[in-house]
Amino acid sequence: MPPFDVPEGDPFGVHNLPYGVFSPADAPSERRVGVRLGDHVLDAGAAARALGSPYAELLGRPTLNALLGAGSTTWSDVRRALTGWVTVPSHRDVIQPLFHSLSSVTLRLPFEVADYVDFYASENHARNVGRMFRPDAADSLTPNWKHLPIGYHGRSGTVVVSGTDVVRPAGQRKAPTDPAPVFGPSVRLDIEAEVGFVVGTPSRMGEPVALGDYREHVFGLCLLNDWSARDIQAWEYVPLGPFLGKSFATSVSAWITPLEALEDARVAPPERTHPLLPYLDDSAEEPGGYDLRISVSVNGHVVSEPPFSTMYWTAAQQLAHMTVNGASLRTGDLYGSGTVSGPEERQRGSLLELTWNGRDALELPDGKRTFLEDGDVVTLSAWAPGPGGARVGLGEVTGRIVAG
Amino acid sequence: MPPFDVPEGDPFGVHNLPYGVFSPADAPSERRVGVRLGDHVLDAGAAARALGSPYAELLGRPTLNALLGAGSTTWSDVRRALTGWVTVPSHRDVIQPLFHSLSSVTLRLPFEVADYVDFYASENHARNVGRMFRPDAADSLTPNWKHLPIGYHGRSGTVVVSGTDVVRPAGQRKAPTDPAPVFGPSVRLDIEAEVGFVVGTPSRMGEPVALGDYREHVFGLCLLNDWSARDIQAWEYVPLGPFLGKSFATSVSAWITPLEALEDARVAPPERTHPLLPYLDDSAEEPGGYDLRISVSVNGHVVSEPPFSTMYWTAAQQLAHMTVNGASLRTGDLYGSGTVSGPEERQRGSLLELTWNGRDALELPDGKRTFLEDGDVVTLSAWAPGPGGARVGLGEVTGRIVAG
Repeated sequence: MPPFDVPEGDPFGVHNLPYGVFSPADAPSERRVGVRLGDHVLDAGAAARALGSPYAELLGRPTLNALLGAGSTTWSDVRRALTGWVTVPSHRDVIQPLFHSLSSVTLRLPFEVADYVDFYASENHARNVGRMFRPDAADSLTPNWKHLPIGYHGRSGTVVVSGTDVVRPAGQRKAPTDPAPVFGPSVRLDIEAEVGFVVGTPSRMGEPVALGDYREHVFGLCLLNDWSARDIQAWEYVPLGPFLGKSFATSVSAWITPLEALEDARVAPPERTHPLLPYLDDSAEEPGGYDLRISVSVNGHVVSEPPFSTMYWTAAQQLAHMTVNGASLRTGDLYGSGTVSGPEERQRGSLLELTWNGRDALELPDGKRTFLEDGDVVTLSAWAPGPGGARVGLGEVTGRIVAG
Repeated sequence: MPPFDVPEGDPFGVHNLPYGVFSPADAPSERRVGVRLGDHVLDAGAAARALGSPYAELLGRPTLNALLGAGSTTWSDVRRALTGWVTVPSHRDVIQPLFHSLSSVTLRLPFEVADYVDFYASENHARNVGRMFRPDAADSLTPNWKHLPIGYHGRSGTVVVSGTDVVRPAGQRKAPTDPAPVFGPSVRLDIEAEVGFVVGTPSRMGEPVALGDYREHVFGLCLLNDWSARDIQAWEYVPLGPFLGKSFATSVSAWITPLEALEDARVAPPERTHPLLPYLDDSAEEPGGYDLRISVSVNGHVVSEPPFSTMYWTAAQQLAHMTVNGASLRTGDLYGSGTVSGPEERQRGSLLELTWNGRDALELPDGKRTFLEDGDVVTLSAWAPGPGGARVGLGEVTGRIVAG
């Protein structure tokens, strides 16, 4: 295969180079760091060894955690080295045999997840939820929403890689008119289309991370589907927040796109309508948003195209908020943006919003949908503007619902 | 020192044998599995090696995780072996030099925490909170409280061992009358006296753990102080639950008491006032409560003695609930009982309740207290009935508040 001849316009060209972990077909129990180029995966550790690179050790591990923990200077250095390996013609004979076709490998969870936090940063999403569940409130946002990026901890042990089946969760639910809760499989199983941010460089307890230090700590991003059982969540979540309605599974893409690949996608977040406390005030910072065009499909049919550029709170603000109380970061921490919903109906990142809490079924070629049915396959994909008009693809995240 | 001559009635006698991880004075960077006996710590790995035990590998690690993951049969076997090592006279000459005085060693976080979940299982605590914050509600409990053990995920990366200073967190707070939130150090920093349960045996995604399998999965318990910044929490927690009000630090005792040491402490939980769904119905199970007598002190003065036997939801019910949606367990998962509060005023496990939200200051010998001041040292200790009238001590959890 030709590593240097990725088709013009391929969203996984040499300007992208996302990292993952794969098992080759001939060694299915091994886990190796891979770098995607087009429809192929470079065995990065083998390449480093073959070329006598000083990064052979860092890239020769079974997860990305060592690379994540190596710090932002090393991230840049490794990326520069990789770019050379796949572009300098004299490396061709060495490098070419170290590529595997994407379809031949098994993609693995690329890093060991430390803590997982989920935010709630889309104003459109939060307002839609408020209108549905608190229709009589004067404001569809809670009073704190414009002052801080609301978030909560999720279950890191059930973060799974794209392609993993999702077992429909069972649990308690209770309609307002039911005299007592009933138990059974969730009947309101939903998608949440999100972007996940992967922390590389840790921080110390008691030492907040400032807005401007975001790029020192965050290695890259992925797509994330925060599967949600709306009926379980509705009954359990007062007063301490979501628990079993979310904890059964969270899917992430197999590829982590380094922040450096997304420099051309940076955009200013929406105008801030409320003054921000200094630790969150990004008016003097570089643009904190990303112009990511997300696509949500169910069984191959696109149901929504949420624009990430509409997110009110940025990843840098979320990081600053998450640590302002002195909470430390660890290598492998993952945080989700919250459901991405744009202002248009076809830009909503959950079925809850797309069907207005089940009222308006979606008409798909294979039938109507309010919430997910067994066998449904949900896929999130995305791209961002790259250098010179190129697109930077994010790895897709897909999952099939199976009966419990 | 005399390993076999622990004073009669010592709560850390041979009937207890909790596990921890320590660094000896002469090798402060090493981490070794230790077993407490009286005021001494046995270097368990060294003992196993010296006696040619098959557990030398399991006990020769820098954390308890390998032992936790070895499963309940091995837990029993190792405990039986340890009991022999410290009681059979012929081992004395080998074992005695492997003890370190407790005061000479540094105690470490005994296991790598995977996911951390905090519950809310004391009816007295939940009713006190309801009365304070929802005084007009018909019921001081939320409608779901008697149907499921309410819980949420916390931050596992900031779980620290007893003795670690706790930096006063800063954050946003907003009194109802304030026009906008203000930022600064928490002025309502609180204690939550809890018991923590440590998961050993993992489970698979999609496979709930039944009530009766509790002892196959839970290795032991510890004391836990879920430090809480009430002002930060009050402003942030609607609608997704506690986040920065809790995530700055959670302290656990250095000693994990195996469930087998607490057989004599098992008691039936309070009578269930509402019918339970089958997966939580423990009426046909062995007693799920523990008769643990907790003591909470501030700067050496006992302010409360919460009785764990009053907890409405048991650890087995919490485990069954946490996994009923198919969420998997990992070795090192930790879950807290929730604040332990008894029915009496002097049995409340938080300053929030003891001072009724700051209204009634506690009169301590060193001054009045509503919430914690810088320099305050909080210590939780506990004991349980053991065999033949002995007491089983839980390792204390202590922490000092320092300014941020």
